Amino acid sequence: MTLEKEALNLHKRLKGKLDVKPKIKLNKKNLSLLYTPGVAAAVEAIKQSKASAYQYTGKGDSIAIVSDGSRVLGLGNVGALAALPVMESKALLYKVYGNVNAIPLCVRTQDAKEIIKLVEDISPNFGAINIEDIETPKCFEIVDALSNKLDIPVFHDDQHGTAVVVLAALLNALKLVNKKIETARIIILGAGAAGYGIAKLLAYAGAKNILVLDSLGTIYKGRTNLNPYKEHLAEITNSEIVRLNLDSAMESCDVFIGVSGKKNILIASMIKKMSRKPIVFALSNPYPEILPKEALDAGAFIVATGRSDFFNQVNNALVFPFFMRNILDEKINTISERLLYNAAIELSRKVKKASPRKIICSLQELARGRQT
Amino acid sequence: MTLEKEALNLHKRLKGKLDVKPKIKLNKKNLSLLYTPGVAAAVEAIKQSKASAYQYTGKGDSIAIVSDGSRVLGLGNVGALAALPVMESKALLYKVYGNVNAIPLCVRTQDAKEIIKLVEDISPNFGAINIEDIETPKCFEIVDALSNKLDIPVFHDDQHGTAVVVLAALLNALKLVNKKIETARIIILGAGAAGYGIAKLLAYAGAKNILVLDSLGTIYKGRTNLNPYKEHLAEITNSEIVRLNLDSAMESCDVFIGVSGKKNILIASMIKKMSRKPIVFALSNPYPEILPKEALDAGAFIVATGRSDFFNQVNNALVFPFFMRNILDEKINTISERLLYNAAIELSRKVKKASPRKIICSLQELARGRQT
Repeated sequence: MTLEKEALNLHKRLKGKLDVKPKIKLNKKNLSLLYTPGVAAAVEAIKQSKASAYQYTGKGDSIAIVSDGSRVLGLGNVGALAALPVMESKALLYKVYGNVNAIPLCVRTQDAKEIIKLVEDISPNFGAINIEDIETPKCFEIVDALSNKLDIPVFHDDQHGTAVVVLAALLNALKLVNKKIETARIIILGAGAAGYGIAKLLAYAGAKNILVLDSLGTIYKGRTNLNPYKEHLAEITNSEIVRLNLDSAMESCDVFIGVSGKKNILIASMIKKMSRKPIVFALSNPYPEILPKEALDAGAFIVATGRSDFFNQVNNALVFPFFMRNILDEKINTISERLLYNAAIELSRKVKKASPRKIICSLQELARGRQT
Repeated sequence: MTLEKEALNLHKRLKGKLDVKPKIKLNKKNLSLLYTPGVAAAVEAIKQSKASAYQYTGKGDSIAIVSDGSRVLGLGNVGALAALPVMESKALLYKVYGNVNAIPLCVRTQDAKEIIKLVEDISPNFGAINIEDIETPKCFEIVDALSNKLDIPVFHDDQHGTAVVVLAALLNALKLVNKKIETARIIILGAGAAGYGIAKLLAYAGAKNILVLDSLGTIYKGRTNLNPYKEHLAEITNSEIVRLNLDSAMESCDVFIGVSGKKNILIASMIKKMSRKPIVFALSNPYPEILPKEALDAGAFIVATGRSDFFNQVNNALVFPFFMRNILDEKINTISERLLYNAAIELSRKVKKASPRKIICSLQELARGRQT
């Protein structure tokens, strides 16, 4: 049986990955406390003090996973309904690894302003919002607007989660090759949500030599075809304002980070141009920018991908359930670069003895004893 | 300890009445089937056929309980956040008695058009929508618009659920006094969601002598101060176009149904004017239109209230979890009067041997062996 067939069968058997379960067995007594007339006391208490909603309801443990289905996995704009299985899976991981009650909310509108309004309107029910699988640059507009408007944190896994796990793996990799993030020459291929988030976090972590490339080559100050987010990238990277294509940019670089969605775009000759002990993160999924064997054959010293069937899986499931649990517990309202940086440091330390084939821990290692 | 204090303590201990639980224990194998890469097969399947969302996701077992908090219990317009404990309680009952995964969605906007748009946008995730505790006549506008726009059923408990349980109890009561619904003279005091729903369903069930009263007296064709919903009531009730206040309307009537929210508005002298063996449903909660003892002393033959501490509790928890389970199972898209009528007949039959103090079954009796 193919994986597709097996996956469909399991989906069909489960009919949804999560169930709602009562926290208490009902009897006549507690029904009168939890429903009428007792529930009125909780209503009045929250009416008096909004903060008490965290005491008397599940708000503080609940998040919404909001997607418009406009950029789901590598499958493109599939719409709200077809995005639902993915958001259910995400909710499953949130629960299993973070003990977070996550509700999939796939929304039919794909208009940024309408999505912002909708999330504002449903925010009272939740302790945080996870924005997921919305195309760029719309996702940035939505995340930025909501971060400003809401009194609960807005987490954007494609941006924040990916950046944390990449930085964690990169810090371990750089140690192994005895290089420093401050001086390493870093190429980021792809300027979508992941590339944007990674560049910002690496810059925050001290990286001074980053080049971000989109399909037109390096992003630089004054280039045409820059949306406001790419303009921001031009500010924080490429201080020498170089105009290069991928092939030339690879010359003497120390680190390649691929989040381009482009299968096999990195070729052996490019790796051969890199500085000593090249670090190659080919993270596009399911088809990396180069396969690990090819990269190693071409001289890469450390290779990572996003796939579970290779070593060094850079997987943002290592981040989002744990990170979200933490911001809910700590009642953190703003996802700052410092917070992401600290999470990356902590995650990098989970690898006790790093080696070229072990720069990041596995989900199983991380979750040991924490799975709910 | 007071009930209020005890209720707050229990709410604080639980911090939400429901938890999300995985339907399956995760391991590396099923993670690859349920998350990447396997989940892509479910996405593609739903993209090809929308109906398959019922096969591959939890849509068919999930509903949203949508409220703007504008008319919560007898507490008035408390807003979205303070309405949350009530919607959580409702979700708890949906799960315990109907095995329905219900998600509270209290919305910050109180604008009918915005609520309609929001519910349309989130509808892909759900198999049905429960509209709850929204003030009249806004709730009617919302329910009607959504019923027309959505391809999933829109249930309005304040209207539909209450009507079903009232009709079920009334049918048993009428049998006991040997009267027929077709000829019984029925007063409905209150023209909100409950009064509107009850009048429509009783008319559908054959009642020809209904008078609905609001605070201005009987509703009749051509009266001023009628919104479109009261105009509809004027069409289906009060065929003789009488203009009476409550006191005069009670003269010779067989059945009084109070859903007015007005404590002690029904007095002994009014019951004394009723026809033989008066049936008095004083359903306002927590303070009925008249207390059972007073009503009986005044000559009422059958008395019912909405309260759990008296006999004959007319409680819509007898309806919504079971009714919703049924419409989800049967994939029923429209809540018709026929559907509500059939549910009332079925519910009335749950009382094996009716008596003046036993015209409706209890939640415990109904749920026996069905609690999940």
